Amino acid sequence: MSSLFGENLKLSIFGQSHGAAIGMVLDGIPAGLPVDTSSVMRFLERRAPGGSPLATSRKETDTPTFLSGIVDGYTCGAPIAAVIGNKNVHSQDYAASADTPRPGHADYTAFIKHGGFQDVSGGGHFSGRLTAPLCIAGSLCKQWLAQAGIHVFAKIGSIGTVRDDPFSLTDPQAAQIHHDFPVLNKERGYAMQEAILAVKSKGDSIGGTIQCAATGVPAGVGEPMFSSVESHISQLLFSIPGVRAVEFGVGAAASTMTGSQHNDPFTVRDSTVVTTTNHCGGILGGITTGMPLVFSCTIKPTPSIASVQNTISLSRMQPADISVCGRHDPCIVPRAVPVVESAAAIAIYDLLLGNTQTPRRK
Amino acid sequence: MSSLFGENLKLSIFGQSHGAAIGMVLDGIPAGLPVDTSSVMRFLERRAPGGSPLATSRKETDTPTFLSGIVDGYTCGAPIAAVIGNKNVHSQDYAASADTPRPGHADYTAFIKHGGFQDVSGGGHFSGRLTAPLCIAGSLCKQWLAQAGIHVFAKIGSIGTVRDDPFSLTDPQAAQIHHDFPVLNKERGYAMQEAILAVKSKGDSIGGTIQCAATGVPAGVGEPMFSSVESHISQLLFSIPGVRAVEFGVGAAASTMTGSQHNDPFTVRDSTVVTTTNHCGGILGGITTGMPLVFSCTIKPTPSIASVQNTISLSRMQPADISVCGRHDPCIVPRAVPVVESAAAIAIYDLLLGNTQTPRRK
Amino acid sequence: MSSLFGENLKLSIFGQSHGAAIGMVLDGIPAGLPVDTSSVMRFLERRAPGGSPLATSRKETDTPTFLSGIVDGYTCGAPIAAVIGNKNVHSQDYAASADTPRPGHADYTAFIKHGGFQDVSGGGHFSGRLTAPLCIAGSLCKQWLAQAGIHVFAKIGSIGTVRDDPFSLTDPQAAQIHHDFPVLNKERGYAMQEAILAVKSKGDSIGGTIQCAATGVPAGVGEPMFSSVESHISQLLFSIPGVRAVEFGVGAAASTMTGSQHNDPFTVRDSTVVTTTNHCGGILGGITTGMPLVFSCTIKPTPSIASVQNTISLSRMQPADISVCGRHDPCIVPRAVPVVESAAAIAIYDLLLGNTQTPRRK
Amino acid sequence: MSSLFGENLKLSIFGQSHGAAIGMVLDGIPAGLPVDTSSVMRFLERRAPGGSPLATSRKETDTPTFLSGIVDGYTCGAPIAAVIGNKNVHSQDYAASADTPRPGHADYTAFIKHGGFQDVSGGGHFSGRLTAPLCIAGSLCKQWLAQAGIHVFAKIGSIGTVRDDPFSLTDPQAAQIHHDFPVLNKERGYAMQEAILAVKSKGDSIGGTIQCAATGVPAGVGEPMFSSVESHISQLLFSIPGVRAVEFGVGAAASTMTGSQHNDPFTVRDSTVVTTTNHCGGILGGITTGMPLVFSCTIKPTPSIASVQNTISLSRMQPADISVCGRHDPCIVPRAVPVVESAAAIAIYDLLLGNTQTPRRK
Repeated sequence: MSSLFGENLKLSIFGQSHGAAIGMVLDGIPAGLPVDTSSVMRFLERRAPGGSPLATSRKETDTPTFLSGIVDGYTCGAPIAAVIGNKNVHSQDYAASADTPRPGHADYTAFIKHGGFQDVSGGGHFSGRLTAPLCIAGSLCKQWLAQAGIHVFAKIGSIGTVRDDPFSLTDPQAAQIHHDFPVLNKERGYAMQEAILAVKSKGDSIGGTIQCAATGVPAGVGEPMFSSVESHISQLLFSIPGVRAVEFGVGAAASTMTGSQHNDPFTVRDSTVVTTTNHCGGILGGITTGMPLVFSCTIKPTPSIASVQNTISLSRMQPADISVCGRHDPCIVPRAVPVVESAAAIAIYDLLLGNTQTPRRK
Repeated sequence: MSSLFGENLKLSIFGQSHGAAIGMVLDGIPAGLPVDTSSVMRFLERRAPGGSPLATSRKETDTPTFLSGIVDGYTCGAPIAAVIGNKNVHSQDYAASADTPRPGHADYTAFIKHGGFQDVSGGGHFSGRLTAPLCIAGSLCKQWLAQAGIHVFAKIGSIGTVRDDPFSLTDPQAAQIHHDFPVLNKERGYAMQEAILAVKSKGDSIGGTIQCAATGVPAGVGEPMFSSVESHISQLLFSIPGVRAVEFGVGAAASTMTGSQHNDPFTVRDSTVVTTTNHCGGILGGITTGMPLVFSCTIKPTPSIASVQNTISLSRMQPADISVCGRHDPCIVPRAVPVVESAAAIAIYDLLLGNTQTPRRK
Repeated sequence: MSSLFGENLKLSIFGQSHGAAIGMVLDGIPAGLPVDTSSVMRFLERRAPGGSPLATSRKETDTPTFLSGIVDGYTCGAPIAAVIGNKNVHSQDYAASADTPRPGHADYTAFIKHGGFQDVSGGGHFSGRLTAPLCIAGSLCKQWLAQAGIHVFAKIGSIGTVRDDPFSLTDPQAAQIHHDFPVLNKERGYAMQEAILAVKSKGDSIGGTIQCAATGVPAGVGEPMFSSVESHISQLLFSIPGVRAVEFGVGAAASTMTGSQHNDPFTVRDSTVVTTTNHCGGILGGITTGMPLVFSCTIKPTPSIASVQNTISLSRMQPADISVCGRHDPCIVPRAVPVVESAAAIAIYDLLLGNTQTPRRK
Repeated sequence: MSSLFGENLKLSIFGQSHGAAIGMVLDGIPAGLPVDTSSVMRFLERRAPGGSPLATSRKETDTPTFLSGIVDGYTCGAPIAAVIGNKNVHSQDYAASADTPRPGHADYTAFIKHGGFQDVSGGGHFSGRLTAPLCIAGSLCKQWLAQAGIHVFAKIGSIGTVRDDPFSLTDPQAAQIHHDFPVLNKERGYAMQEAILAVKSKGDSIGGTIQCAATGVPAGVGEPMFSSVESHISQLLFSIPGVRAVEFGVGAAASTMTGSQHNDPFTVRDSTVVTTTNHCGGILGGITTGMPLVFSCTIKPTPSIASVQNTISLSRMQPADISVCGRHDPCIVPRAVPVVESAAAIAIYDLLLGNTQTPRRK
């Protein structure tokens, strides 16, 4: 059940990096929801590598074809299936990795699990390319959430040691994110881009963080225990290649706080219960408080680097060297921003679909 | 589906803090596995509050009664059900929280979700007390993992700003953990205890971190994408009350590393493929590498504090003050150590049960 | 995942016939639903063997204890757990079956599956006794359905070759069912009872059928394909020991009908779309039509019979004889009526909980 | 979760009858299994309408394209996705059904559920055409089962009142099934074909039954209760459009048998435990006995008939007449035979994948 997510909606992702096509099936979506497929296209462009020196020069034309589930611009109640054909295949770039697993990649673990039958080209099913169909589903969920007044948006938190200004926990604003490079502080954004180019020039790569927020989520969404909002979002976030840490609200900083510092006091504002701070990131007991959902995740440095690395030959069980050629991102963080948004949107929409709230007792 | 976990095994947790009983049903376990119920008892004692000044003075005698699934010391193939009766009920301690939700607690979100029908006594189904049945399941899974040569153990990583020595990522050792206070460095342990007593004396509380490791996990366990080892473990960890961040391997520190630093080089040792470092925490592409699994999580400061806090009266929709009396832990971290072990053991055992590995292609 | 049912609600059944207790956990139920536990008791009595010569003389006092999920007569949003203690244990009755599997029972298949570790006493987890916790869940779901105007009721369709009058497919009426022996035609009921006593006097047993209906189910419930109403109900019905066939509407008779005979014409009555006949049993395309749901199932003759039967000794792998002593029902059909109602109620309530209907397009 | 099946494998079916494509995703399949795609093609031809006067004249070229999951003729561990393009679209045939629901079809229930947003062309997602992707999955599972010595095969049981010789319950033989018309008794087959042509000439249709068997299934497969073999197979069978009844072993005939007649005596043959009869159809307690699995299902007469029928106009809420033109099968039973085989193969393979059997206790 590796490639299936959701309790109320059911998202199935399929495909390999260099196979015939990658795609997704999104089941359990009610009929009658409007779908703007051109908006899906634009969203996928945010993930696509462009001509930017910050990203891989591999050109992917991620044009989704919707096969089912949509009639005349509305969901029809049937599962929504969409595929993206793989056009730009360069299997020779990856041939070596069949015997000499790339450090930091799934080459070795896939080999052990699948006994040598795994698709080695471009990482196969483990490729970051599989985040494209995730973004199709994410874009759809974002549209439907937006119609319910819920807005999901993310930005770069840091690249290496360069940190952007953080979102306000109580009032994160999508409008403050710069379009060309998704940060709040333009100067920090430039510094980040320089940091990326610096590692690139050395045949190396760099990690970073992404911060995500969802505003407009009503109080009462989520379930105690295993379907907590945190459990649900983190399950999906940790399925994105390279994510190494997930934090909600103040996150790891909670470990050095006292209860009197961390607890968010309740108050009434405009006849609504709010908290004056939002250290908990909008979640208490696994259930939304009505305050903005805010969380962040850490993305490791791209493992594909040109520098020579130590590995082994699986056939000879001896040390070997590897230099991962091909066209790779020196930093995956900028392109991962819409992927994180997608994960958040899918998880939140799934919880909303199954949300049962009891009217207040009289 | 709030209180159900697992793909191969199915764990169901039930009960409220002050209800008749709390318990668990663990389904999908093969017949013929030996069960040492006295070992379960000893494990629960690690979670129980004792007479320690570090913990609540509430006495819970967490004696599980096994109702089904075990015959003559072996699993019989039927679901394993166990209950713990609630003996020490003090509902009056919590009466006020029905109208004035405690900051940092699920009181308000449960009220919104369940419309006022939720069990308010002691946090009801949201209580940390529900981690006791989780520990029953965890202890069983730990036993069965140990029979397969897999050992799961955890320790305190930090309390407030006092940090223990971290586990070696390549060779974490259970034997180095002190028994009375689970740290590697005894002096740091004393400092942590002092830190806890210091906040306690002020009617406050403090957070911390827990580091967990699993040794002996074979390579190839886990699934790509949504059933990655990280996804599976984090789903369960974030269902533990108070967990705010989950990190694998070097975790958040990956954000400031380069690929050449973070990638773990492969080598051959004793005819086995290993990595010389283990920054990835034993997981690549969501699948185990055969190196130790190492991860950590952040626990927020206990929200129940004696200090006066601002909240509201739900009935009057006006500001109110609250001081959470009753017997509460000034720091939940020490008692949460076996809970984190349980979460890890359950998640790993679940993945192992469904593990399909293809023999190596010839 | 043997003992877990449901998509929106999650029902977990546990226990063995002669273990400490049997029980159930019902998760996913909204808060605020009234619960009449005395009604659950009365419902269980319909399943219990009484002093009737038609049933086993084994006395079971099936008194459920609710452990969680209910506060002050209402569901509180937490999982509902209930147990029934096993008081009347006679393991010696069954000792022989450990080595000589009873024909028609699960003794042999359980032995093969569980390698000899299965609980052999009284059929263990495979016992018909496990239908008692199913009836707890069924009684609760019936209550909640009734509050929504949906009524689920069943009756004996036939015992051996004696057939009751069938339910009207378009207007089945609960009020027409006799209380003491659940048939429509009292005389046929007497003939059935005679048929049961006749086989009992020979140390034999007899099968039969049960017909079930649900009125008031709105149109539009159910999902196409794998969650069709038929798929959902039959999955649950075939989990009841002894069920060998499940039929919807005219059922197997559809095989000899023509389309012009079987198709149910639509018409408008009181501004509502109805069908003038109901051969389809209230389901088209897996989704309810708004007409009564009507289905039936076949129950095999009780396999426990006093007559001498051929079996084998598993230890010696040689032929052996067996006569199943102990107190057994010569016909399980009368006691299975509330079990079938329970299965139907649980399946329908589960589908209702997840029901999403799109408002009519303008 | 309408279009998703399986506990260990996960089968997702998507598409509408006249949409861009129909297809399936089959996840959870181990790597390294050989796949013969030409065999899938031949299997689909058994379901396809040909030039036979017995079937619709609509020509469908059901050529599946595999998008993922297969590399060099072997499964690679990634989800297997396949699509079939829809080439022969005649939406005008179905335009009327948008307002005047066809009796016996899902038109009305889909309208109610999806509020008028459903795809009305050709039955949309409810079309029998969606059984083509089910057959892709079925053909794959049949291949993998055959490699394990398990053979799944089906035949017509009856058309109208013409009944074929039934399978031997203890020794059903695939080799005895005639190729051109899948029956055991050729003369009965001719009579069936005449019966079909007779109803066709009157603009009517006819129902029938299909009998299916699986040989070579080892003892011990299946789970008690909700994942019983019967529960699992029937869930899938009842998702096939038109199935109205499912019976295992002697099925409904069990209702008139006594225990001494119905119980299958155990004996030892060639050092193996077998039953001398197989009235239970190879299943006891929901678990396979090692004897052949035998079951049957009833298929209703095709609802699409040329005869004038009473229906309503949904927009005017008034009576209306309908004659379903277009090219329709006068009897769906012959084409449904491979569909039933597919359902059985998928259900059995799913249970086998998750099968855990405990070695015999010493």
